[in-house]
Amino acid sequence: MPNENRLEEFRRYREQMNSRISEANHLGINRFFNLDTAAYHDGALPSKTKELLGLVASTVLRCNDCIDYHLIQCVQAGWSNEELTDALNVALIVGGSIVIPHLRHAVETIDLLRQET
Amino acid sequence: MPNENRLEEFRRYREQMNSRISEANHLGINRFFNLDTAAYHDGALPSKTKELLGLVASTVLRCNDCIDYHLIQCVQAGWSNEELTDALNVALIVGGSIVIPHLRHAVETIDLLRQET
Amino acid sequence: MPNENRLEEFRRYREQMNSRISEANHLGINRFFNLDTAAYHDGALPSKTKELLGLVASTVLRCNDCIDYHLIQCVQAGWSNEELTDALNVALIVGGSIVIPHLRHAVETIDLLRQET
Amino acid sequence: MPNENRLEEFRRYREQMNSRISEANHLGINRFFNLDTAAYHDGALPSKTKELLGLVASTVLRCNDCIDYHLIQCVQAGWSNEELTDALNVALIVGGSIVIPHLRHAVETIDLLRQET
Amino acid sequence: MPNENRLEEFRRYREQMNSRISEANHLGINRFFNLDTAAYHDGALPSKTKELLGLVASTVLRCNDCIDYHLIQCVQAGWSNEELTDALNVALIVGGSIVIPHLRHAVETIDLLRQET
Amino acid sequence: MPNENRLEEFRRYREQMNSRISEANHLGINRFFNLDTAAYHDGALPSKTKELLGLVASTVLRCNDCIDYHLIQCVQAGWSNEELTDALNVALIVGGSIVIPHLRHAVETIDLLRQET
Repeated sequence: MPNENRLEEFRRYREQMNSRISEANHLGINRFFNLDTAAYHDGALPSKTKELLGLVASTVLRCNDCIDYHLIQCVQAGWSNEELTDALNVALIVGGSIVIPHLRHAVETIDLLRQET
Repeated sequence: MPNENRLEEFRRYREQMNSRISEANHLGINRFFNLDTAAYHDGALPSKTKELLGLVASTVLRCNDCIDYHLIQCVQAGWSNEELTDALNVALIVGGSIVIPHLRHAVETIDLLRQET
Repeated sequence: MPNENRLEEFRRYREQMNSRISEANHLGINRFFNLDTAAYHDGALPSKTKELLGLVASTVLRCNDCIDYHLIQCVQAGWSNEELTDALNVALIVGGSIVIPHLRHAVETIDLLRQET
Repeated sequence: MPNENRLEEFRRYREQMNSRISEANHLGINRFFNLDTAAYHDGALPSKTKELLGLVASTVLRCNDCIDYHLIQCVQAGWSNEELTDALNVALIVGGSIVIPHLRHAVETIDLLRQET
Repeated sequence: MPNENRLEEFRRYREQMNSRISEANHLGINRFFNLDTAAYHDGALPSKTKELLGLVASTVLRCNDCIDYHLIQCVQAGWSNEELTDALNVALIVGGSIVIPHLRHAVETIDLLRQET
Repeated sequence: MPNENRLEEFRRYREQMNSRISEANHLGINRFFNLDTAAYHDGALPSKTKELLGLVASTVLRCNDCIDYHLIQCVQAGWSNEELTDALNVALIVGGSIVIPHLRHAVETIDLLRQET
């Protein structure tokens, strides 16, 4: 049974801990976070495409929090369910059945995101 | 010093061993190869976008042969060097410095591919 | 303290989300799921052996859901606790101490499965 | 919201399952656990340094339980928050943004450990 | 084109460097090597089965040297080409297309091993 | 048989391709390279310790080029063979037997580095 609030909890925990990390004032870590944000801004490739790249990278590396973060961005950027599913199929073929639990998680997250709007 | 013939050798070895694998007549393996090919055909997402997804997935998973294969497809699909570099930057941020040796390999492969044409 | 219901919850969530994924009607994904099922059917190797291979692959790749799924199949196929432990030892040696949290999970799952019968 | 008791639960579960694993009397597994413990004892390198190596290895391999275990040891060995953060920065650079969820977890664990004392 | 001597070179290099490592007289490392050898001896599972587990673990973790080592043992233990291929199919399904370059390598190694006898 | 010139070739190729990457003028990539360099400078932890952390991270992630790079730095920083071996033992225990081919490579690199001086 999906936890209806898990996206909200994820957003709150992520924000809270990112602040906590930033307070540690480690120049290298803070710069890395800035670079990470900038990597998905419009460049030679549009931001929308790069969020999809981030989603597939997160899926083959099997990180649910990273999948959720990029799905939030991808839905906001306007990707349809059909397009997201087609991207997740690439991740499934590249990464194999070990990716399936994360595919389940991703599909649940997409459903939760569509319910929010 | 880049080996000028390495792309040609890669293509020949890949084709030769794929035939050898197919001769083993394992239904599951042969079907997987068909699914793998089909995953990059036009669907909800165009083939061109999916090759870029394949490139980034291969880079964060650190597989040089897979990087070379998808770069061949990406160059053929019309992605420019600036766009490929921007996609590789996403892979670098997601995967970290452990990706750098594969970034070197990818940049060399792009150079070799441009020299072929 | 082990959650007594976690195997039941896993089975329910797995079934529910697999249906949800199948409803998306992505030909590639649905074919992959069929290939995945078929890979563990009797072939040159008996199904029983292949479930053990799936267990060890899931353990070195450190995926608890995959471990649980293959343990359910392995117990049903008739592997004893001593044989499962000997297989998990191979996974531990190959994969190192990073595998230990998943070894704990696997041993707990085996206990829960034996309690069910 | 951090679960205040999660370190206590982790310690209890870890101890309980390690006993359960040891009861299986698999010579290979029991010897591996002894080797694992011994690897962090004083040798050519002091134990304190080796716990920091274990922390960084656990972080780039993205295992929260292993991170928690080595943070408990690192705090006990006398590493300061600034030193732990500097080590985690190396893990972040080597492993990339996919490490960030585990960095959040590590920083939360450090806070919980400091509250205990 | 397969290098006809690569198995011989692998065996020589492996033996030479294992001696070199053993000369370092690190108790932990030497004990780990003994544990590694013992993990594939007859136990609750026969050695023959455990070599196949080692092969699949090595393949999903994508280590060519480890694949070669376990294939040498598997062929010596009497596994047929059809059985090895069926085991490699499990590794391919679990690990995905990123495993394919290692599948090529494995199939080439099997051919070289059959030519030796 | 170790290739006596492989460290020299590695250094030349690394420098050449890093220049080539830098010429692409991608701001994100160039900043990542700067962050990567800075991560190993003296901070809360001395540079010498951080190079050892980089070595162990590279070993458990099984990247030979990264291992070579950090070994060059570690030898220059003054770590003895006994200390390096003790650090590699931590990597072996954490990462398991799949690390062994990289342990062989690392030990060979250490020998080559000592011959240079």
